[in-house]
Amino acid sequence: MKIDRIETAYYRLPLEPFGDAGHGAIDSEELITVKLHSEGLVGHGYSYTIGRGGRAVKALLDHDIVPLLEGRDAEDIEGLWDLMWQRLLYVGRGGLASFAIAAADIALWDLRGVREGRPLYALLGAGAREIPAYGSGVDLPKPLDELLKQTEGFLERGFPGVKVKVGREDPKEDEKRVGAVRELAGDGVDLMIDANMAWGAEEALERGRRMEEFGLYWYEEPTIPEDVAGHSRLAREMATPIAVGESLHSPHEFRRYVEEKALHVLQIDPVTNGGITASLAALKTADEAGLKTSSHYTDELSAHLLCASKEPIYLEKHAFALDPYLEEPQKVTNGRVRPTESPGTGLRFDERALDPHRVA
Amino acid sequence: MKIDRIETAYYRLPLEPFGDAGHGAIDSEELITVKLHSEGLVGHGYSYTIGRGGRAVKALLDHDIVPLLEGRDAEDIEGLWDLMWQRLLYVGRGGLASFAIAAADIALWDLRGVREGRPLYALLGAGAREIPAYGSGVDLPKPLDELLKQTEGFLERGFPGVKVKVGREDPKEDEKRVGAVRELAGDGVDLMIDANMAWGAEEALERGRRMEEFGLYWYEEPTIPEDVAGHSRLAREMATPIAVGESLHSPHEFRRYVEEKALHVLQIDPVTNGGITASLAALKTADEAGLKTSSHYTDELSAHLLCASKEPIYLEKHAFALDPYLEEPQKVTNGRVRPTESPGTGLRFDERALDPHRVA
Repeated sequence: MKIDRIETAYYRLPLEPFGDAGHGAIDSEELITVKLHSEGLVGHGYSYTIGRGGRAVKALLDHDIVPLLEGRDAEDIEGLWDLMWQRLLYVGRGGLASFAIAAADIALWDLRGVREGRPLYALLGAGAREIPAYGSGVDLPKPLDELLKQTEGFLERGFPGVKVKVGREDPKEDEKRVGAVRELAGDGVDLMIDANMAWGAEEALERGRRMEEFGLYWYEEPTIPEDVAGHSRLAREMATPIAVGESLHSPHEFRRYVEEKALHVLQIDPVTNGGITASLAALKTADEAGLKTSSHYTDELSAHLLCASKEPIYLEKHAFALDPYLEEPQKVTNGRVRPTESPGTGLRFDERALDPHRVA
Repeated sequence: MKIDRIETAYYRLPLEPFGDAGHGAIDSEELITVKLHSEGLVGHGYSYTIGRGGRAVKALLDHDIVPLLEGRDAEDIEGLWDLMWQRLLYVGRGGLASFAIAAADIALWDLRGVREGRPLYALLGAGAREIPAYGSGVDLPKPLDELLKQTEGFLERGFPGVKVKVGREDPKEDEKRVGAVRELAGDGVDLMIDANMAWGAEEALERGRRMEEFGLYWYEEPTIPEDVAGHSRLAREMATPIAVGESLHSPHEFRRYVEEKALHVLQIDPVTNGGITASLAALKTADEAGLKTSSHYTDELSAHLLCASKEPIYLEKHAFALDPYLEEPQKVTNGRVRPTESPGTGLRFDERALDPHRVA
């Protein structure tokens, strides 16, 4: 299965503006697509950003990864992952390089599925399973009445869990918002909070504890990813489980978190983690440590990946989604999702919908 | 001091092919230059790679960093560093983002010096000092006779130290080469070895110990940067000091190494570390811990930065250098270097020399 050629494209997709404590205001998503041609078949992959760095992801693909991969054996996915990692080591070790490696890696897995006529979850050695999905409110500045309206929407769609962003300057505002969502949702719904690295560990502990009265299912990214000791402390000292993963860009970073007992819920994102190969490695690390797993964005790919995990508790359904640009948006039934049954990842972009947003 | 506009350029500079255990074969250097215009003055900055990822560095500058900085106050260098770091956080946290941030940060420091009419070392609160330089042999595949010829050249230039790459498959070859260099140099010369992350910690310990008989001044990058515990173990169990730094892309990474007692010699590279601001923070961490400091590549900038360190022991003089492309190459006198006295960094590219290599 020789890789004959690889096409890439860059799109800027407008979003209803939102924001969070760590990344500030966000008004668009960059989408970088990869089509990997091999002996008449095509594997589809993609990367995305929250509006920054996407042109660099495309440049890394076009100038470094594509020339490296063309002509090689598409079947040696793990070998090619190592090759890309090593080739980009000097400017890499995670960060932006992982976003570019991911796009190629996802296309390689998709191609394998297309060739074998098997869905991704089966390639990962798993059976298909239903995974609970939660409604993820992603907008910290959203006024309370709109936040509650958004939550109502999640509850109407039957999600058994909802997530609220925290990190407002005034702790009382966070508490008021989380409390109001708990009141609206009732006790039967799982309620997560996400701080997007808003605080130092000390403040994260103090602020987190003040919100525990609302019954929290997890506390996500309480402090910066570099402060693993801070996460360990929070994991030890709080009653609420700690969830981390979207900001970890390599299997090394996940291993360190697990070794230092710095998380309870390991969240994968096959784009930010460095590809399906890397997220799968992270899930194995979670399994070995007996940890629960979840996902970040990447709904369609994560539905497959989480099937390969021993204890997947939730798949994230973002308030914004790629749905308008997909041939077959993911279905949610009774608050649950299943992986697709078509060969490969099942994720195909609707090019007519994307075309108006193509920039490069 | 408003930032009016920023120009960038990308060059591919051919190198005499060489290689090392971690990065493989290297045949060119990518150079990305930045000219930051502010109220009639110009600050010069640059980034480089070992031949991969440079187009992405330029894309990150052009599409993300330049629009972010234009119109802002050039004098708030630390504030702008934080702004760039935070803006690129989602795709950043080190890696390639640090290479792009560095180019802008270097230009901002240069501009400050130009405006104040003071050399960089003075801006850093330091006095000028002479720093011993070592000759850095960077080619692992180089045959022994050529290695010895290269070493002779270093000794003729009066360098008090020389470095040899290790990481050949057969440990005996490493030992033979290091031993031959020691024999040629005599006992009065400091001899460093650099493994470029060739081994796991266990093997690095075993192979390092076998070479200690040759009297090693330091043992550089014995294993991968992610294995901080491995470095700590080597630092504890070996008689030879451990040197690390070129692969660390943020002040966070340096702090972790220092906290875990995983290095004795902290090596800065203001490009790979994320700029002068980031390298300066790393040097402060070293000072607080009583560590020795050195540099990687970036000869001209590091001559200034090391003046701001309490215990700078060596500046690296690479076998390949930017000299052919500089208006004033760094002078080595009696095996020592001094920072330049002209305003700013003193580093100015010779555009006529660079022009034939411009790609974008």
